[in-house]
Amino acid sequence: MPELEFLGTGDAGQVPRWGCDCGACQRARLDPARKRRPCSAALHTEEGTTLIDAGCTDLAERFAFDDIRRVLLTHFHMDHVQGLFHLRWGQCRSKIPVYRPDDPKGADDLYRHPGVFEFQPPCPAFERQQFPGFNLTPLPLLHSRPTQGLLIETPRTRLAWLTDTLGLPRVTQDFLQQQPRLDWLVLDCSEPPRQTPPRNHNDLTRALHTHHLLTPGRTLLTHIGHEFDDWLESDRGDLPATVSIARDGLRISL
Amino acid sequence: MPELEFLGTGDAGQVPRWGCDCGACQRARLDPARKRRPCSAALHTEEGTTLIDAGCTDLAERFAFDDIRRVLLTHFHMDHVQGLFHLRWGQCRSKIPVYRPDDPKGADDLYRHPGVFEFQPPCPAFERQQFPGFNLTPLPLLHSRPTQGLLIETPRTRLAWLTDTLGLPRVTQDFLQQQPRLDWLVLDCSEPPRQTPPRNHNDLTRALHTHHLLTPGRTLLTHIGHEFDDWLESDRGDLPATVSIARDGLRISL
Ligand SMILES: [Mn+2]
Ligand SMILES: [Mn+2]
Ligand SMILES: [Mn+2]
Ligand SMILES: [Mn+2]
Ligand SMILES: [Zn+2]
Ligand SMILES: [Zn+2]
Repeated sequence: MPELEFLGTGDAGQVPRWGCDCGACQRARLDPARKRRPCSAALHTEEGTTLIDAGCTDLAERFAFDDIRRVLLTHFHMDHVQGLFHLRWGQCRSKIPVYRPDDPKGADDLYRHPGVFEFQPPCPAFERQQFPGFNLTPLPLLHSRPTQGLLIETPRTRLAWLTDTLGLPRVTQDFLQQQPRLDWLVLDCSEPPRQTPPRNHNDLTRALHTHHLLTPGRTLLTHIGHEFDDWLESDRGDLPATVSIARDGLRISL
Repeated sequence: MPELEFLGTGDAGQVPRWGCDCGACQRARLDPARKRRPCSAALHTEEGTTLIDAGCTDLAERFAFDDIRRVLLTHFHMDHVQGLFHLRWGQCRSKIPVYRPDDPKGADDLYRHPGVFEFQPPCPAFERQQFPGFNLTPLPLLHSRPTQGLLIETPRTRLAWLTDTLGLPRVTQDFLQQQPRLDWLVLDCSEPPRQTPPRNHNDLTRALHTHHLLTPGRTLLTHIGHEFDDWLESDRGDLPATVSIARDGLRISL
């Protein structure tokens, strides 16, 4: 059965943040299970592994070259692509296709020196692509760069991976509301509740708003910053029953 | 006494290279002491630590925020700066100055979002700057981007860190030949002897040519690719007595 493995559930600064002594950062230094690395995942199917973003920089140690079938990128911020800069110089037996949003800049010199990677032409929003074991549909998000959410459909399960985003564009909200209900919503929630939302990311208030709009079977909050992580330590009792906090290493069956 | 710690001695692909089964890469997978991470170092003095390049991506785990006094960058290729993308979001009590070559592009969005780092105005070539415990003089190199070598002088020792480069510009060669002899030369040697030199890097032939021009007390070859590493396994007997191969974790007293 396909499985989604959360490789990282942190924001760009990760948890612990370098030099920070807040409660969440101190706890993460003492207990590696509380670390939050860059927000990303590995989708394991019978065919092999599909990476969802590549912000972790130890991917070469965790995954065999021959096991990686493709990379799905939400956007080209460094916390989502920095792991590719080393991987690209892999010893190339076959190219690894990278599916990406329509962002002509990419990241640094990745387009010019892609190495083992083969950047695919951007796929139009809402157009379903078929891969062995799952379908993929890109969903526009609201972020500071062109960013696509990923609707992943296996024979049994529908999951939407929506990072990085502040709320949802109307077209994406309408599309998801017209489709069968999601089993899983994986959603950007970078910060604790704020009076004014953070720029380009959800705080808890806006994340719960999206959760209530889409009423998925379960919501997993991710892209979690150290302040939200610290806030959760005292206040997580207030979350709706179907909302949980993702953690690094979490695996869910699809 | 000041000490220079080699954090990495590999080329951009590192050793082992992802997916490679050459002898060097196999040995490095079996024996962590043979790994070669991105070419970089930490200069430890009484004052604290000065980073020389920042291609390693675990710097936040290896160095306390308060211990890092500054970063010296040779150039803005990703294998020399990728570690800064996470560090920059550190919890900022004071800024960390970054000394860099005159490269208006930098790397990705580092200049626009420097976080804890404070990029200093480029220092003119051959102009000596004083820091607690050592002096620094930038030396122009020959590479595909603006790149500066680093002449580091402590009260007892003179060391030149020359990566990445193919040979030396005439002005740098003349400057070093007119100065007192170097105690240590740390030199780009990415590849085994080649009929035509690699682009932008030394092969062993060109590295030894520079060694003979400068006649330092000792030369340490670094920025080593897996093919050179594999070649060394059989042929290293041919190196001059004052030339050695750097390895990750090596420490030398300055
Ligand atoms: Mn992000
Ligand atoms: Mn982002
Ligand atoms: Mn390099
Ligand atoms: Mn370079
Ligand atoms: Zn913190
Ligand atoms: Zn190899």
